[in-house]
Amino acid sequence: MNVTVHGRTRHYRTVTFDAAKNSVLLIEQRLLPHEFKIIGTRDYRATAAAITDMVVRGAGAIGATAAYGLAQGARAFRGANLKKFRQHVEAVYQTLKAARPTAVDPVNAMNEVRHAMAAGTTVEEQKNLALAAAEGFAHDDVQHCEAIGRHGAKLIRSGTKMLTHCNAGWLAFVDIGSATAPMYAAQQQGRKFHVYCDETRPRSQGATLTAWELAQQSVSHQIIADNAAGHLMQRGQIDLVIVGSDRTLGRTGEVANKIGTYTKAVLAKRHGIPFYVAIPLSTIDWNLKRGFDIPIEERHEAEVLGAWGVTKQGKREYVRVANPSSRAFNAGFDVTPAELITGIITPAGIFKPGELWKRRHELGFGSGK
Amino acid sequence: MNVTVHGRTRHYRTVTFDAAKNSVLLIEQRLLPHEFKIIGTRDYRATAAAITDMVVRGAGAIGATAAYGLAQGARAFRGANLKKFRQHVEAVYQTLKAARPTAVDPVNAMNEVRHAMAAGTTVEEQKNLALAAAEGFAHDDVQHCEAIGRHGAKLIRSGTKMLTHCNAGWLAFVDIGSATAPMYAAQQQGRKFHVYCDETRPRSQGATLTAWELAQQSVSHQIIADNAAGHLMQRGQIDLVIVGSDRTLGRTGEVANKIGTYTKAVLAKRHGIPFYVAIPLSTIDWNLKRGFDIPIEERHEAEVLGAWGVTKQGKREYVRVANPSSRAFNAGFDVTPAELITGIITPAGIFKPGELWKRRHELGFGSGK
Repeated sequence: MNVTVHGRTRHYRTVTFDAAKNSVLLIEQRLLPHEFKIIGTRDYRATAAAITDMVVRGAGAIGATAAYGLAQGARAFRGANLKKFRQHVEAVYQTLKAARPTAVDPVNAMNEVRHAMAAGTTVEEQKNLALAAAEGFAHDDVQHCEAIGRHGAKLIRSGTKMLTHCNAGWLAFVDIGSATAPMYAAQQQGRKFHVYCDETRPRSQGATLTAWELAQQSVSHQIIADNAAGHLMQRGQIDLVIVGSDRTLGRTGEVANKIGTYTKAVLAKRHGIPFYVAIPLSTIDWNLKRGFDIPIEERHEAEVLGAWGVTKQGKREYVRVANPSSRAFNAGFDVTPAELITGIITPAGIFKPGELWKRRHELGFGSGK
Repeated sequence: MNVTVHGRTRHYRTVTFDAAKNSVLLIEQRLLPHEFKIIGTRDYRATAAAITDMVVRGAGAIGATAAYGLAQGARAFRGANLKKFRQHVEAVYQTLKAARPTAVDPVNAMNEVRHAMAAGTTVEEQKNLALAAAEGFAHDDVQHCEAIGRHGAKLIRSGTKMLTHCNAGWLAFVDIGSATAPMYAAQQQGRKFHVYCDETRPRSQGATLTAWELAQQSVSHQIIADNAAGHLMQRGQIDLVIVGSDRTLGRTGEVANKIGTYTKAVLAKRHGIPFYVAIPLSTIDWNLKRGFDIPIEERHEAEVLGAWGVTKQGKREYVRVANPSSRAFNAGFDVTPAELITGIITPAGIFKPGELWKRRHELGFGSGK
């Protein structure tokens, strides 16, 4: 999407590749929203470290980063010995896989790259196929988000007041995003609407990343405390909710997403407000039988007990907010049942949660994707 | 309640009076939870400033502070001229009333003191009556909270996991608190239970004040992000919710309280979890006909856009968390309808919200209180 730095507006992707320098270029997301900076990784180890250290985060974005990282590692190989090359690529793969062990996207993305490489008969051919496959993965990610935007934009009218939670924006993908895609598409079509961004404690991705994205695209928005959505709904100030998802169960239509998503869905149901989840098909889990079995990551207490921000002096600081002798409980995600979800916006169209399983073959289940 | 400072445990009230020094003693609540300090006000103007500057906050606490402040001002008068004394007392009254113009408690408390003073025929008599009435007001506040505790403690069993929102604790009253009163009473009766404290963004009174209170009384507790209550309820981790209220409508049973209260009530209803509101009778508004008409204070955006805390170096700092170019919407309160409220815990017993109006005469409506 477009970013304006020092008055100059340019189009950026979250992840790109500099073939001349054999370097993965990433938006340094840890500096956002206070600073916009692109970094280039020196080698595949640095690319893996960028994933581990959260320079880049979000399903599509880390998938593309790992795909590019694998190509980057392959391209750095010297010589023409195919056996040694394959050993080297395997080591690169393992390093990138270990960078975020619980995520499924880097593995899926790298498997696509490896699959493409297998068609090459020389080291040089395989290197070229690797880069082409990584570029293909990134391209597909953008296409999928564009398709989500096309379908989802129909839900947004001029005057719509909508709510989103956390960041399922272009920063979480290669471009455009999932939950934000309908907003950007509707804006391109000239519609004027307003977005309430849940700040999304404890990590505040709504107040930092989503608000930054929307500000860059000049989308009308306000940040609200996570406590405020119910009040706004009660006063008729929210017409539509669109969120993303980390994992959607194909069998049940249940949606795992950032903690607090379930609460917003319960509130939307009470007020008769449509609640949509925007996802690329790759986040559908066709195997798991019930949402209760989705492992819920328990994260550091420090996230709940304080906040990261910038002081008046411009210094990035963590401040402890909570009582020093108290502990916290910090569940990272929750699960929203299908009955609370109006529709699931995918690149293939908008489906009722219960429709996913019926249409599983057309949606890619069993296709090996 | 008891507070342990440097290993020494002592009983404190939020507000007391030092008659020898003619000074109102207050816990400096702006320093909590990071520092515990008692300050004494030099004169009634300093007492008014302490209310304005949030040294002391909470309905009962500022009521008692104003009552003591009026006595403090009266006692500082020199001479025996009753007419001049009355003029002086009126000026004191107006100063204290202006300290928090939207609050009703200081006015009600001071009216009690003035009513008592009227029985005196000399300046000296009226001074003594003023102090006695202020002490009486504080005493009554404690008695009311004790009674709330007695009734509410029946709801808490050993093993109960409960949720509270914001701070309706002893820091908001003279002692014991409203929502916390059942907890402290149940603990005195030897029951072991666990309290989840919503951090209560944007001002984080749950993470700071309530968590500090519970830690001081060794009540088992954990702070959670406001986003997490739904998940905990879904997993069967919450059996009971008790919150306070800033204003409860006697005619409808609707409850105005800190933003986010409504959301917790909606979640509790969905999960069949009892949702109680603990209040002294003085917070019942017998006049207003519908909750929609309760004015909802819109507060500074900065509260939502950042956080107050303590840096690693021990310095109190405000950090900006949100995207610098984004704005916020910050409603301070919301209104919970009666149908979501299991019961209202008052000093006179626990009532269904709809019962308040039927029992209005026994609960003090029209009694001039």
